[in-house]
Amino acid sequence: MTGIKAIVFDVFGTVVDWREGVARELRAFFDRHGGGRLDPYRAADAWRKRYQPAMEECRSGRRPFTRLDVLHRENLDAVLRDSGIEPSSVDARELDELNRAWHRLDPWPDAVAGLLRLKERFIIAPLSNGNVSLLLNMARRAGLPWDAILGAEVANAYKPQPEAYLRTADILGLQPGEVCLVAAHNSDLAAARACGLRTAFVPRPREHGPAQASDLRPEGPWDVVAADFVDLASRLGC
Amino acid sequence: MTGIKAIVFDVFGTVVDWREGVARELRAFFDRHGGGRLDPYRAADAWRKRYQPAMEECRSGRRPFTRLDVLHRENLDAVLRDSGIEPSSVDARELDELNRAWHRLDPWPDAVAGLLRLKERFIIAPLSNGNVSLLLNMARRAGLPWDAILGAEVANAYKPQPEAYLRTADILGLQPGEVCLVAAHNSDLAAARACGLRTAFVPRPREHGPAQASDLRPEGPWDVVAADFVDLASRLGC
Repeated sequence: MTGIKAIVFDVFGTVVDWREGVARELRAFFDRHGGGRLDPYRAADAWRKRYQPAMEECRSGRRPFTRLDVLHRENLDAVLRDSGIEPSSVDARELDELNRAWHRLDPWPDAVAGLLRLKERFIIAPLSNGNVSLLLNMARRAGLPWDAILGAEVANAYKPQPEAYLRTADILGLQPGEVCLVAAHNSDLAAARACGLRTAFVPRPREHGPAQASDLRPEGPWDVVAADFVDLASRLGC
Repeated sequence: MTGIKAIVFDVFGTVVDWREGVARELRAFFDRHGGGRLDPYRAADAWRKRYQPAMEECRSGRRPFTRLDVLHRENLDAVLRDSGIEPSSVDARELDELNRAWHRLDPWPDAVAGLLRLKERFIIAPLSNGNVSLLLNMARRAGLPWDAILGAEVANAYKPQPEAYLRTADILGLQPGEVCLVAAHNSDLAAARACGLRTAFVPRPREHGPAQASDLRPEGPWDVVAADFVDLASRLGC
């Protein structure tokens, strides 16, 4: 792994634990509106399940690029309806606030320590489908020491579209092979590798909860496989 | 000044001293190539003088948006020719490296201390015509603690085009009136104010050297006038 100048990171699942964070805020919401009968983890999973189809509308060109906060907000309405809560019966400001649960996710325990070490030697930035203000608010709250906030909104393309990876390298003034993507998702790494980026797999076996069956192991010829971000820093000589 | 959530900064001249930094690197270059007869400050001023006309090509639509590193590189060739040095006689890698003098500018002495205080309370980001990698490399070298790297390249528009200010606020998820621009240039503040942003003037009376005659005083109804970034932090309650 010589010649790497920047390390970019998938965020949801790789850097932060979206499921616990979203469920935490849904639980508080359901305590007020759901009469105690709704499962916040089930709703968090349902909210996340609508993520790829919503982005696919933009990737396919059926819809112009639309930032993730907007997609999340639309998907929240759908999840609430499926849970038997009519969104129009709730104050829109409360729903907007709940939507920003995605801005308030906690990092995995090793994430900040690993990023601080990696930053000593490499440029570090998110390469996430999250929009800039989401990632920025998350970073301020969680202490994620990014050098810049990059990703889909800056590249104007959602992963795994090649433009998301290639424009990010270009914006950094780097060749694709000088950039390494870190992700807990084999599919993301496969798309990055196809664009010429280097790849590092860090498993997050609890991302989807205790019954997770996917992405437990590396499934491609990734340049690095690390147990967590601190191990990644050691493997990259930091 | 209530309701401010983000403070964005002009960079060249306001946060960093471009003239000294560029002259320092030109001096070293001229020692190798100019036979000791060329004035690095004069060349730095000439390089900077080509900045606005080059961006105007993009603002006018005669040329697609082109990042500042590319414009600086073209302008460097022109400045060298005007100095009697044929650029094609120099190794292109050396010229590319000299072009990155703009990535290696030093902050004014108060800048980092003021930014660290402002960051405690506000989102802070550059709103510069510099491109992302320029601003990122500058920040890593100088210790500028930005929350995100914003500006012309992310907004796809050069200041003072309204889109540069309005898209930056939008990307932050904020109303224009929740964002304050800090600049040492009255014209930049006037354009930001016309878009609804709040404004803070910090004079940098040596930006253009000892004979500077412009931007010595506030020339508009700016919300705040501060002596430097530390004074600005105090005036904003940080």
